[in-house]
Amino acid sequence: MSRVDELVQLLGQQYVLTGDDAEPYIVDWRGRYSGKALAVVKPGSTDEVAQVVRWCAANKIPMVPQGGNTGLCGGATPDSTGQAVVLSLTRLNQVRSVDTDNDTMVVEAGCVLQSVQQAARDVQRLFPLSLAAEGSCTVGGNLATNAGGTQVLRYGNTRDLVLGVEVVTAQGDIWHGLRGLRKDNTGYDLRNLYIGSEGTLGIITAATVKLYPLPVAQCTALLALNSVEDAVSVLSAARNGFGAALTGFELIAGNCLQGVVECYPQQRIPFEGDAARMPWYALLELSDSESAEHARERFETVVGAAIEAELVQDAVIAENITQSKALWHLRESIPLAEKAFGKSIKHDVSVPVSRMAEFVQTTNAALQASFPGIQHVIFGHLGDGNLHYNVAKGQARTEEDLLAQQDAVYELVHDSVHQFGGSISAEHGVGQLKRDALPRYKDPVELALMRRIKQVLDPDGLMNPGKMLIP
Amino acid sequence: MSRVDELVQLLGQQYVLTGDDAEPYIVDWRGRYSGKALAVVKPGSTDEVAQVVRWCAANKIPMVPQGGNTGLCGGATPDSTGQAVVLSLTRLNQVRSVDTDNDTMVVEAGCVLQSVQQAARDVQRLFPLSLAAEGSCTVGGNLATNAGGTQVLRYGNTRDLVLGVEVVTAQGDIWHGLRGLRKDNTGYDLRNLYIGSEGTLGIITAATVKLYPLPVAQCTALLALNSVEDAVSVLSAARNGFGAALTGFELIAGNCLQGVVECYPQQRIPFEGDAARMPWYALLELSDSESAEHARERFETVVGAAIEAELVQDAVIAENITQSKALWHLRESIPLAEKAFGKSIKHDVSVPVSRMAEFVQTTNAALQASFPGIQHVIFGHLGDGNLHYNVAKGQARTEEDLLAQQDAVYELVHDSVHQFGGSISAEHGVGQLKRDALPRYKDPVELALMRRIKQVLDPDGLMNPGKMLIP
Repeated sequence: MSRVDELVQLLGQQYVLTGDDAEPYIVDWRGRYSGKALAVVKPGSTDEVAQVVRWCAANKIPMVPQGGNTGLCGGATPDSTGQAVVLSLTRLNQVRSVDTDNDTMVVEAGCVLQSVQQAARDVQRLFPLSLAAEGSCTVGGNLATNAGGTQVLRYGNTRDLVLGVEVVTAQGDIWHGLRGLRKDNTGYDLRNLYIGSEGTLGIITAATVKLYPLPVAQCTALLALNSVEDAVSVLSAARNGFGAALTGFELIAGNCLQGVVECYPQQRIPFEGDAARMPWYALLELSDSESAEHARERFETVVGAAIEAELVQDAVIAENITQSKALWHLRESIPLAEKAFGKSIKHDVSVPVSRMAEFVQTTNAALQASFPGIQHVIFGHLGDGNLHYNVAKGQARTEEDLLAQQDAVYELVHDSVHQFGGSISAEHGVGQLKRDALPRYKDPVELALMRRIKQVLDPDGLMNPGKMLIP
Repeated sequence: MSRVDELVQLLGQQYVLTGDDAEPYIVDWRGRYSGKALAVVKPGSTDEVAQVVRWCAANKIPMVPQGGNTGLCGGATPDSTGQAVVLSLTRLNQVRSVDTDNDTMVVEAGCVLQSVQQAARDVQRLFPLSLAAEGSCTVGGNLATNAGGTQVLRYGNTRDLVLGVEVVTAQGDIWHGLRGLRKDNTGYDLRNLYIGSEGTLGIITAATVKLYPLPVAQCTALLALNSVEDAVSVLSAARNGFGAALTGFELIAGNCLQGVVECYPQQRIPFEGDAARMPWYALLELSDSESAEHARERFETVVGAAIEAELVQDAVIAENITQSKALWHLRESIPLAEKAFGKSIKHDVSVPVSRMAEFVQTTNAALQASFPGIQHVIFGHLGDGNLHYNVAKGQARTEEDLLAQQDAVYELVHDSVHQFGGSISAEHGVGQLKRDALPRYKDPVELALMRRIKQVLDPDGLMNPGKMLIP
């Protein structure tokens, strides 16, 4: 019996894909990574996942776990040897239980993020994880990569939203760790070890996630700013003034908004005169547990004081949900406004918030020195110190010229990030994209510890090989 | 040269304690655990910690890291063989840096918790970790045990308050992991692996902790309740009504308050008539970023609705800080009111909040069936599902009779906790106290994973042997 036949015997014909059927699973959604696979399998339960893993382990066959296949670092794409089995978790898509008194929900790895958000809303709760791919990414992928997004400032990364996990180990054992406890000090934190491990230590099949009260009202404002320094000062004032009600603080360079309205003429920058041509903007979101009036009143007080202090040059506070959505839409359109800038070299980086201004200034200057005329396309989650620091061709060169310099640009930016005590992957993970850069920036003791953990939990190196760590 | 002489050579005479000088470090503060040690050493820097660890590793000498020696599970006390070196971290007591724009602070392991809270307050920030021993426990001990406390409902456990750690590994290497980043997805979560590992994997020498805005106002209320069910409903309403402003929700059985006023006649239960003799009370704390008036107004709205819904039978809202302190003082006096109940058998347990009422009812009944006349002394952090579920002798037996039954009582309560999906150690850790119970309650796959992690990070088993895991 062939190996594929053995898998068919385990799961049934329709859940073992090869040839053209397998194609969507072995190329990432942007078409930047592609590989080959022995087969793509779609187990329908945790037990079936465990069976497949045991079979792979027994036959020394590498495994590549996959969720919605929306990752940005090639972490869910098999290599080109065609030896691996891709384990698509998409059939594990049940919300197993909802517990409103405990404010928890047990969801399977294959649940699409948006459906989890909806299941929470159905019981008047908030599941705060929110990111661009939420309509197609899965919770399993979110956990595997410790996904970030726009609400991290208030609610933390995926890791902070999870109380328990169910994991199939590299040996095919099932760890039933779906505890819904906010306090449990009975051992090592294995939960957080599997979260963010990109499928290299085992396969997360389900999770117990935290729910929060739905905000009664949300209020959004766009502020026009002179500098990143001022943005950092406003962030500090907003934290103090709003406390935990501050749920979003996005920094946007002026040229990003210009690019958006150039690409999408139906959108507009909601300022007149000089304020429409500022070097920086900040998008703030306030979530209120009282009322829309209260939210607006708070906003006016805190933003008013910042204007008084000349930290903010102008401000637009959304009058209603439509205006609020329009402001967020401006922000969300930036990554799509490639027409304005051409394809860019993207960096998902973080530095301490206190060093943000100096980081931007220093890195911009260094890039201009090495690549004159290059264009900076900078936006991100200032509240988390996370910038999408992108580099576009500018007027002086073609897209091809720029992309030919990609490795040198990466290295310059990442070296700078490193000098400022930052991270070369803030929220997207390592995958294949940043694997080889890790040894340059990671503390060697830490990297050695990671290798030892990998070695002891996956001694045969079968779990998502080639991702995160150089094999 | 004797081994002690070698240590003296490393650290200097005054920092190597033996004989009587060592005594305070080899007995825990309550005198429940005592051991022997080759020596107690007090390194003065991370490098010196690393030197001691390398020396111990080379000589196969067990190491017992120790902070303020205020633990409740014997996790910092050496065994009776006298072979181990106790490493007291108390000389590493510097606040290395404070970064208000990044809202972080780098503190050394030996800093007393209260001094860290104060250093935060000095820059108008809150470091929210707060627990009974804060005047003498150290941050290193808090991290080693992932300490909880009264603010977990809002700010999480110690783990949630830490962004980076500096660790001396079991081999004596230093991992410089003091990142002050809110987003960093470049590898396995080693930080959380060391936090809560009770010194069994390495020694945490410093941490980068998160700071929060200082609340502008705090408001406290004591509610008189008919049942735990009602308390859970009020918690839910308070979460919805206050959002993140709800920073405390303590459940207190009526007899605990009676015991406090019996022991400390200068304290009083601030109710009249029936409300002074209710079976349950809840202490709520609201932290406001606006004003005392606003806090009080919010309280009146939400508590008013709960009274309307007959979930709350009576309520006292503190009019000022003195009254607020008096309410907290009632709560904090419960563990000290032993005169009223006699020595009790203590359980630090958690269950999902939604199962709390049934857990208390079922466990109380089972205890009465097996140990008639026993007295329940129950209080805890309902918001986190964490109860200090204590058992006192009652009228029918002596303290000695009770303590003779200790193991049977432990087992009954812990078995019940386990049946309700709970944890036998919510916030105090495992140490020596609960080590042998772990295999009974822990998922065997999880326990095996823990052993493998221990094995690979500390192959010689020298780091705090006999704690958490059976060697």
